[in-house]
Amino acid sequence: MPHIALPSGQIGIRGAMAFRPDTARPLNELVEILLTGPSTLTKGERELIATYVSSRNCTHFCESIHGAIAAAHLGGDEALVKQVKTDFTKANITAKLKALLAIAGKVQQDGKLVTAADVEAARNQGATDLEIHDTVLIAAAFCMYNRYVDGLGTDQPDDEALYRERGRNVARNGYVATSKEYLGEAAGAHAATH
Amino acid sequence: MPHIALPSGQIGIRGAMAFRPDTARPLNELVEILLTGPSTLTKGERELIATYVSSRNCTHFCESIHGAIAAAHLGGDEALVKQVKTDFTKANITAKLKALLAIAGKVQQDGKLVTAADVEAARNQGATDLEIHDTVLIAAAFCMYNRYVDGLGTDQPDDEALYRERGRNVARNGYVATSKEYLGEAAGAHAATH
Repeated sequence: MPHIALPSGQIGIRGAMAFRPDTARPLNELVEILLTGPSTLTKGERELIATYVSSRNCTHFCESIHGAIAAAHLGGDEALVKQVKTDFTKANITAKLKALLAIAGKVQQDGKLVTAADVEAARNQGATDLEIHDTVLIAAAFCMYNRYVDGLGTDQPDDEALYRERGRNVARNGYVATSKEYLGEAAGAHAATH
Repeated sequence: MPHIALPSGQIGIRGAMAFRPDTARPLNELVEILLTGPSTLTKGERELIATYVSSRNCTHFCESIHGAIAAAHLGGDEALVKQVKTDFTKANITAKLKALLAIAGKVQQDGKLVTAADVEAARNQGATDLEIHDTVLIAAAFCMYNRYVDGLGTDQPDDEALYRERGRNVARNGYVATSKEYLGEAAGAHAATH
């Protein structure tokens, strides 16, 4: 049960966002730019970074929904998403993404752990400054979203099928369209289902 | 030296924001709403929460600038800011703020540490649901800002006088006006000096 009186029937971050639409607007804008905006990282890669960080923070809602969106972007490959969460070094992903996930994992703990050598390793695999920047900010942002979802005690259902269905919808229609479908206009036109 | 090629001469988060104005916009909007928007918490109280969380994350830039802004809002009482960072239970602040800082400190570690008893304790001191929500989100957001600043290896000068001066300007003129003064329009009209 949530710690404060969140609107009922809205799970995870959506309950928190519906409670305070003013702050939901920039929270949604940020995740939309980072995960769905123009980028040389694929949407699947960016969702994997978000999923990995949420998994390390043990935030069930974020880990589940972003894992489902990532899988949908990756042709339904849920095993790959699971492998990234358990040991990405053995996953069938590019060496560049592995180097970026290593940076994201350090940011999840403490940004000061990122070394020049970590960044150099990513560059050696072809990562650009913008990709490194976005990896750091995605990891940092999910440390916020995860704490927001957990800190308010939001409802985080255990139903895998629910996340799978919503993940497919977000991957197909985008965050905004999907959130309108589930929320109506309650949380504003910018509301997202992440 | 920053890990990526950030614009030179801009310290802390401002260098990172100038590098990527698209993401700077929602990052600035969020902090403006939370720290300067209408609230039943004073600006000084909200800056103390931001300072406390940044202090626990050991992010020198954020701890210093928000500590300076907090002090400016609190009549220049730098000793109070220091006391909040070292042991807020003995600080000359309200019992309500102490209960909210206890929640913020848990969110800084892991949102799941916040208990119904923590929230009840804040309510017993008069905290509203919105104040509890904003405390959780301020703490979560600074876990993002801190990691963003640290993870990119931004320049975080050691000059107390610099933070004191900027803190006074932000407290007097607000984030937007002050950032224009230091940045010109480089990072956009929404750029903030936090």
